[in-house]
Amino acid sequence: MMEDHVFYDCATAPSPRRARMFIVEKGLDIPTVQVDLRNDEQLGDDFRAINPRCTVPALKLPDGTVLGDNASIARYLEEIRPAPPLMGRDPVEKAVIAEWNAVAESDGLLAMAETIRNSLPGLKGRALTGPQNYEQIPALAERGKARVGYFFELLNARLIDHAYLGGDRFSVADITAFVVVEFAGWVKLVPPGRQTALIEWRTAIAQRPSANK
Amino acid sequence: MMEDHVFYDCATAPSPRRARMFIVEKGLDIPTVQVDLRNDEQLGDDFRAINPRCTVPALKLPDGTVLGDNASIARYLEEIRPAPPLMGRDPVEKAVIAEWNAVAESDGLLAMAETIRNSLPGLKGRALTGPQNYEQIPALAERGKARVGYFFELLNARLIDHAYLGGDRFSVADITAFVVVEFAGWVKLVPPGRQTALIEWRTAIAQRPSANK
Repeated sequence: MMEDHVFYDCATAPSPRRARMFIVEKGLDIPTVQVDLRNDEQLGDDFRAINPRCTVPALKLPDGTVLGDNASIARYLEEIRPAPPLMGRDPVEKAVIAEWNAVAESDGLLAMAETIRNSLPGLKGRALTGPQNYEQIPALAERGKARVGYFFELLNARLIDHAYLGGDRFSVADITAFVVVEFAGWVKLVPPGRQTALIEWRTAIAQRPSANK
Repeated sequence: MMEDHVFYDCATAPSPRRARMFIVEKGLDIPTVQVDLRNDEQLGDDFRAINPRCTVPALKLPDGTVLGDNASIARYLEEIRPAPPLMGRDPVEKAVIAEWNAVAESDGLLAMAETIRNSLPGLKGRALTGPQNYEQIPALAERGKARVGYFFELLNARLIDHAYLGGDRFSVADITAFVVVEFAGWVKLVPPGRQTALIEWRTAIAQRPSANK
């Protein structure tokens, strides 16, 4: 138990799930505070004082520094707890994992966020996370759905001849992409049956302890 | 000169500028091929065979691997040429730099790309980079401009009490944010005069050799 850290989580949201899976895969146990996104707790003064960007995940370090996104949390944890490596072992593997993680963010997570945040009535005026309010753009929700379909194709093509996105080992890129595929299920976007490599990869990851916490 | 690598660049575009600056800051000299984005060379069969994502920057490695985005190229170069460090020296610094680089991408570069790609007549039907074609969404261009203004505020607030975004040393986060600020100038989005910390930081970076190549 890392008693000198605090993890700010929300059990129902996709972005903090990425950090939560990373923490479990590292075998770490960090005191966790749930932030109630459904009641906009992230926009309140208390949480804003912790993370001015008003987003989870966040990780408070022993020196008081608050890391406020998945990029920083993953990098920090990989550095202080190198085993098992989730961000690669040699320069090329590290680069390939960084690239697939970025693809999963830009072509997957962002497309899904666009789909959800520009269509759900409960998110009117909240089309982006963070302290600023932006109106929904319905055309963006439609585009997002098309992009998610393309993202599934990218994943499946890669997984036909690689066990994991980064190569032969599970990595942070698999975490990000898996969370996106699960998130897509919220709006019934699911990989078509012909994408067998993607479906098998998803089934295998869903059985890891980190996917069930 | 790293004769066994090939850097695919486009001298006029913001994204490859990030990699180009990184290469120069590392003191590296890599054989470079210009890809003519204005004539859609990135969408042609020849370049598609190199980077199926049809984007620059890309970096071909001695083993034939092609790294196809800034995330992978920066990670690879930081690993093979650790000095000077551009991605941090200790776990906390590495994390903070990763976070500011991600902020510069999501709140800065993405907002600028939305502004440009959803408004320029020459980019009709090409609202996103990559092999897929998407129509422009004018509302997204408007939102992008507002977001860039907020991004400038974020940068200025950070730079009031830090010489660089990651702390006291120049890093990849400064490269990304600097390229965004310069990119914003294309559409006359410039930091207002009261943002003196941001303006001083920009002026200093503009004088580095890496900003002039």
